[in-house]
Amino acid sequence: MKIVRDILEAKGCQVWSISPDSTVYQAIERMAEMGIGALLVHEGDALVGIISERDYARKVILMGKLSKETRVEEIMTRKVLFVRPDETLERCMGLMSEKRVRHLPVMEGDRVVGVISSGDVLKAMLAEKSSLIEELEDYIIGRR
Amino acid sequence: MKIVRDILEAKGCQVWSISPDSTVYQAIERMAEMGIGALLVHEGDALVGIISERDYARKVILMGKLSKETRVEEIMTRKVLFVRPDETLERCMGLMSEKRVRHLPVMEGDRVVGVISSGDVLKAMLAEKSSLIEELEDYIIGRR
Repeated sequence: MKIVRDILEAKGCQVWSISPDSTVYQAIERMAEMGIGALLVHEGDALVGIISERDYARKVILMGKLSKETRVEEIMTRKVLFVRPDETLERCMGLMSEKRVRHLPVMEGDRVVGVISSGDVLKAMLAEKSSLIEELEDYIIGRR
Repeated sequence: MKIVRDILEAKGCQVWSISPDSTVYQAIERMAEMGIGALLVHEGDALVGIISERDYARKVILMGKLSKETRVEEIMTRKVLFVRPDETLERCMGLMSEKRVRHLPVMEGDRVVGVISSGDVLKAMLAEKSSLIEELEDYIIGRR
């Protein structure tokens, strides 16, 4: 059964982060630059939060704030859900659906070693099932 | 093989839209209210665009605009990709990956009959493969 580590091996371990005292404007600028939808928030080596395009869309202008005057730490999600590299994809998907999050950092000890998205997980699960179907079909044909 | 119509039957045909001359502020307010990430843009009965949280994050403040002074039509995507109810899920997924879009309206003639997201499509494909695996396994066990 595939695990989180398999996804990281395929997509790489790149992690994009920003500091909690950056402005929200800087955060969305960085997301646009990198073509991504969320950034981890790191204070030194410590992971202290996560900020997404959705946080930006829901917690800045609608709350009467301005992106250039609001710090990342004011709108980031502080309780960051994460997974371990040996976690199963089923468990990740369950967590993402239940908590309604699209990105999960992957932690090894205290260190972030990657980030996986719900798209990554679903696509990896799909690939796994497709190859199982092929195996089962080969087995059936071989036995005929 | 599952098709788009199967997804709509499961999730319903609800469509949320906004007019092109609404402000971007009104659009993100409506997305927040409905808990969704994109809105269709309708002018009367005609589908003229789609606007997403990503459009908001990329094309407003970063372009020096303000959400309360920018109309939806200024930042919406005008060339709306869509699918038909009898389209296969594989084809939808291919389209979404290739064009990097997360939402596809479903059109029957000139009428929008629903919207599907990449999550909807991947989950439906996963369910389909899981049940095929069960069938193949049952078949193998039955023949032993």
